[in-house]
Amino acid sequence: MTITISAFERSPDGGQGMARDMRVRWALEEAGQPYQVRLLSFEALKEPGYKALQPFGQIPAYEEGDLVLFESGAIILHIAERHGGLLPEDPNARARAIAWMFAALNTVEQPIVEREIPEYLERDKSWYEARMPLLDERVDHRLGELSIRLGDVEWLDGAFSAGDLLMVTVLRRLIGSGLLERYPNLVAYIARGEARPAYQRAFADQLEVFKQSGQAD
Amino acid sequence: MTITISAFERSPDGGQGMARDMRVRWALEEAGQPYQVRLLSFEALKEPGYKALQPFGQIPAYEEGDLVLFESGAIILHIAERHGGLLPEDPNARARAIAWMFAALNTVEQPIVEREIPEYLERDKSWYEARMPLLDERVDHRLGELSIRLGDVEWLDGAFSAGDLLMVTVLRRLIGSGLLERYPNLVAYIARGEARPAYQRAFADQLEVFKQSGQAD
Repeated sequence: MTITISAFERSPDGGQGMARDMRVRWALEEAGQPYQVRLLSFEALKEPGYKALQPFGQIPAYEEGDLVLFESGAIILHIAERHGGLLPEDPNARARAIAWMFAALNTVEQPIVEREIPEYLERDKSWYEARMPLLDERVDHRLGELSIRLGDVEWLDGAFSAGDLLMVTVLRRLIGSGLLERYPNLVAYIARGEARPAYQRAFADQLEVFKQSGQAD
Repeated sequence: MTITISAFERSPDGGQGMARDMRVRWALEEAGQPYQVRLLSFEALKEPGYKALQPFGQIPAYEEGDLVLFESGAIILHIAERHGGLLPEDPNARARAIAWMFAALNTVEQPIVEREIPEYLERDKSWYEARMPLLDERVDHRLGELSIRLGDVEWLDGAFSAGDLLMVTVLRRLIGSGLLERYPNLVAYIARGEARPAYQRAFADQLEVFKQSGQAD
């Protein structure tokens, strides 16, 4: 069955792959599954037609035959349950990999998004500069805990899994913030994720969209 | 195998059931699974012994034989995969219920937590009062979208699922905020969740901890 995902027709980040379609593209590449992309304007995301697929007007939505899914975590878990390469076979190791998926999205991404939103919505407020160190500190606290747990191993729990895939994409949101550099093992972890052939293919494909629309070189 | 979860020995909310052990208690009650509780002080959560179980020093951690899990979403999915009552049998309906689990935690809880944290950490700042309407607005935006999707049905997608369980516990964090009242269908949805016998048992059990330690009546 053909898989179709939605993505932004114009990049909010100039093709750096920070939007959440990148996670799903990467997972589909790891699983060796072809897919189509439906490109949408920011305006189209707000329309009732799209909200019937994705009630919060976000990308990506995922369509596969009769199935419509949203939430990058749920889409990736769905792909991982049907194809190899994203979750271990052993039941306990599988449950732990899924725990890392939730940790990436609910515990690590939370303060990262909280730090990002004011960059868009509160930059003109008198408190913007004064608050940034507080937000940095909340992110740094989580990074410190993650760095301790990762230690000097390659991936979070044994072989590469969907938990690592999500964690790497979540951590990538901090590129350019100056917050990652205190944790060389996290920097190396991100680089290991980005070096995977499946990541490279996904990244090139999302970049191509923006090259074709004249937004990137 | 005995299931043990961790919980706060003293309630941050006076036994209102807002801590994340409540979600797991509720899921275990829906699944008809007995469990033990390990009560921990705030200090104990920061210790390396606990962080070996839960790298971010949060509750709950979940222990079942050799398996150690963290993240309430992952724990509930693990329970739901092994026992009836929390996920539909039909594969597509199951995937959609899991999408609601991720939506509760990654999309709806995000702005709710973002609104809560300043109540603890920024109350003494000059900007605290001025920022609250912005935070309320971000929460309200998500509630509006959720309310439209829920419409006048009982649960988010067919029968009650782990997606509803998580969404109800996430929305309960807003009780007392005044933000829910604009959406009578969400208020009724929370009440339907709270009326379930499994919820009632879980709530009574978490309250009992605080009664015994003299924190609640």
